[in-house]
Amino acid sequence: MKELKEYVRSIPDFPEPGIIFRDVTTILQDPDGLCLSIDELREKLQGIDYDMIVGPESRGFIFGVPVAYAEHKAFIPVRKKGKLPCETVSIDYDLEYGKETIEIHKDAIKPGDKVVIVDDLIATGGTTEAIAKLVEGLGGRIVKIVFVMELEGLKGRKKLLKYDVDSLIKYEGN
Amino acid sequence: MKELKEYVRSIPDFPEPGIIFRDVTTILQDPDGLCLSIDELREKLQGIDYDMIVGPESRGFIFGVPVAYAEHKAFIPVRKKGKLPCETVSIDYDLEYGKETIEIHKDAIKPGDKVVIVDDLIATGGTTEAIAKLVEGLGGRIVKIVFVMELEGLKGRKKLLKYDVDSLIKYEGN
Repeated sequence: MKELKEYVRSIPDFPEPGIIFRDVTTILQDPDGLCLSIDELREKLQGIDYDMIVGPESRGFIFGVPVAYAEHKAFIPVRKKGKLPCETVSIDYDLEYGKETIEIHKDAIKPGDKVVIVDDLIATGGTTEAIAKLVEGLGGRIVKIVFVMELEGLKGRKKLLKYDVDSLIKYEGN
Repeated sequence: MKELKEYVRSIPDFPEPGIIFRDVTTILQDPDGLCLSIDELREKLQGIDYDMIVGPESRGFIFGVPVAYAEHKAFIPVRKKGKLPCETVSIDYDLEYGKETIEIHKDAIKPGDKVVIVDDLIATGGTTEAIAKLVEGLGGRIVKIVFVMELEGLKGRKKLLKYDVDSLIKYEGN
């Protein structure tokens, strides 16, 4: 059986020279790849007691919602500024170039809710750290963070030391 | 049992005065609502022979991927310009204010592939019409289009007359 890593397409020099882009669309465009990615995420959550999955737009939606559906959990989207229609809390964080602002609905998480964060990729960890602050700001408790892919060379886990972090595919470089 | 429509939050005057925004995040934040929405989409596809689901970012991802996962189909993302890393075909279309460009990976659909389009909402139908042109430009055959919500007052189906179109929740107005 093909391993999940074999479904990922690596694209040199995208979006800029020297960067190898790890493309998850080739996981999704094979029904076996799509199934395998979601099943492996679900496996990582076996035995974890949680209420909801939180995932950022838009690749966090791709992997987070099917897991939530299959496990009968809630899914809470984190979106870029201005996209969520009700009252939100927001946070700014630094990107490699410039800043980003993300938001979550204020009423989506209640104090004590047990939260799993799912995203496609951990690079520097900045986005996930910001999501964690949003969740904890609303009183949520993060019980697990799972990524499909991890760029170990960027040491994103250093920003997430206090959490239980896991990933399906590890790349040594960046 | 609660009906799917009851999970939708209606927000008056968003994003501008006079518009009632239909918020799907309240479907997702209840595990029963999330399950019901995906199960009802799957029901609409019973008996349809298809290879893949095509959905646009980012709410098309939310509803399209879980269906693809549960039915063991491929999922092909349609994204805004510049987000897909490999060779794409793109199309411009008119929005109420201004223009939008969306893209699909050129190698994601082969001639003869049987395609279902899934999205959260049909309003004027402009986005879906553009997606259909992208799919057919690559030789794909659209066998069904399903929306979670339909704003009947905006008559979006008029742009999609040659397709088998269905929706889970209908709103008379806009």
